[in-house]
Amino acid sequence: MRYLIRVSYDGTLFYGFQVQPNLRTVQGELEKAVSYLNRQTPTKIYASGRTDRGVHAMGQMAHFDLSIPIPPEKVQKGLNSNLPEDIYVSSVSLVPDDFHCRYSVHKKTYLYKINMGEYNPMERNYVYQLGKKLNVSSMEDASKVFLGVHDFRSFIDSEEVRENTVREIFDISFQTQGDFLEIRFVGNGFLKYQVRNIVGALILVGLSKKTKEDLEELLARKSRKKALKGAPACGLYLESVDYFDKEKEH
Amino acid sequence: MRYLIRVSYDGTLFYGFQVQPNLRTVQGELEKAVSYLNRQTPTKIYASGRTDRGVHAMGQMAHFDLSIPIPPEKVQKGLNSNLPEDIYVSSVSLVPDDFHCRYSVHKKTYLYKINMGEYNPMERNYVYQLGKKLNVSSMEDASKVFLGVHDFRSFIDSEEVRENTVREIFDISFQTQGDFLEIRFVGNGFLKYQVRNIVGALILVGLSKKTKEDLEELLARKSRKKALKGAPACGLYLESVDYFDKEKEH
Repeated sequence: MRYLIRVSYDGTLFYGFQVQPNLRTVQGELEKAVSYLNRQTPTKIYASGRTDRGVHAMGQMAHFDLSIPIPPEKVQKGLNSNLPEDIYVSSVSLVPDDFHCRYSVHKKTYLYKINMGEYNPMERNYVYQLGKKLNVSSMEDASKVFLGVHDFRSFIDSEEVRENTVREIFDISFQTQGDFLEIRFVGNGFLKYQVRNIVGALILVGLSKKTKEDLEELLARKSRKKALKGAPACGLYLESVDYFDKEKEH
Repeated sequence: MRYLIRVSYDGTLFYGFQVQPNLRTVQGELEKAVSYLNRQTPTKIYASGRTDRGVHAMGQMAHFDLSIPIPPEKVQKGLNSNLPEDIYVSSVSLVPDDFHCRYSVHKKTYLYKINMGEYNPMERNYVYQLGKKLNVSSMEDASKVFLGVHDFRSFIDSEEVRENTVREIFDISFQTQGDFLEIRFVGNGFLKYQVRNIVGALILVGLSKKTKEDLEELLARKSRKKALKGAPACGLYLESVDYFDKEKEH
């Protein structure tokens, strides 16, 4: 029986999502809880993708198989009672055996939160405390550079990446409420550090330190040389993961 | 020179406000920073009152004296650069030598935040994750019991309290946004655990487990016997402290 779960977590106290020996990770905690439920049999989980250290999630998705069938509501209850308080399973459903949490992804939505106003200690791990006013309409205009299919090599991890770095961004939207700014990215998938590096570049536009043309040029360069500083992890949330219509897909 | 500061802090990682030997407290961290600024001379600070372990503040007030005059803007900068990231000084002003942060208080505002909806791991230390729908209008009606001058002995710390337990509550107001409920208390001062115990009682009314009359009776009893369970610290914020008009007062 294959189960699909929706998970929210506070990334602050984790060394990222992916299992690492002797470090507290989201996957590690989830696998402990799932394995316990699965008659104490070590059980792997497969997520839609990793999130980095300090990054949060409202809607991470993961799947796993149980050797004995358990009703989804009981799986949810069982997992939540065995998970630490910074992880929460918000839904559980049964999926076909050939469903894969990573390969069946249709689109992902990431959210980045910025406080342009006074420092708020309560939100220091949940909203980037920029403390500077941004010209949001110039950021909005510059963000159009990233829409569509691009090789995002200039906006990824600084290390050498061998994989295909072409991705499609469907939408980037901005929402302000007072000093609070949210930027939402929807795409078919995102590379490591891609959202944070794009947000870092857009912030420079919002501070009039870079122009839309600078970002265009940087994107076209397809290289991490002269890369701009990324925005910190604490402001980033994996908001949701959408799958292709299961009926049509199978 | 006497300085009045406005301080916000995240109470999660402190053993409350008041200095305690070998424990991390808000007052302890503030006194370290103030003493450093005051030519490394041990300097005491006086706050409007304590907050308990896990309780937050947006607008705690405190005063201290410096032996050498420093412009308020420089005091703010100096303190913030020496304070940990979970404390922030949001304003500094000069006050007369006979101003006292505790004895000159006119009114205090406390805010209590409740999530009636799905568990949110990101807010577990900042909003009480009740996870149950409340009948807010019945809570609003029952809250009227507490308005005005009362002996709040039934709603304080369970230990024996010798001090005067009469206080005046000027206003209790409710604000909902979706599953999110905020209850704001304005009064001339609050006793230890008073707000949390009143919120705990109001929640029972919101769950139809107690009535307005039950709370009336409990208040009249003036005893902690048969006291109701208080709401957890994490939802509570000292929002602001107002002082009597300084001109009129002196």
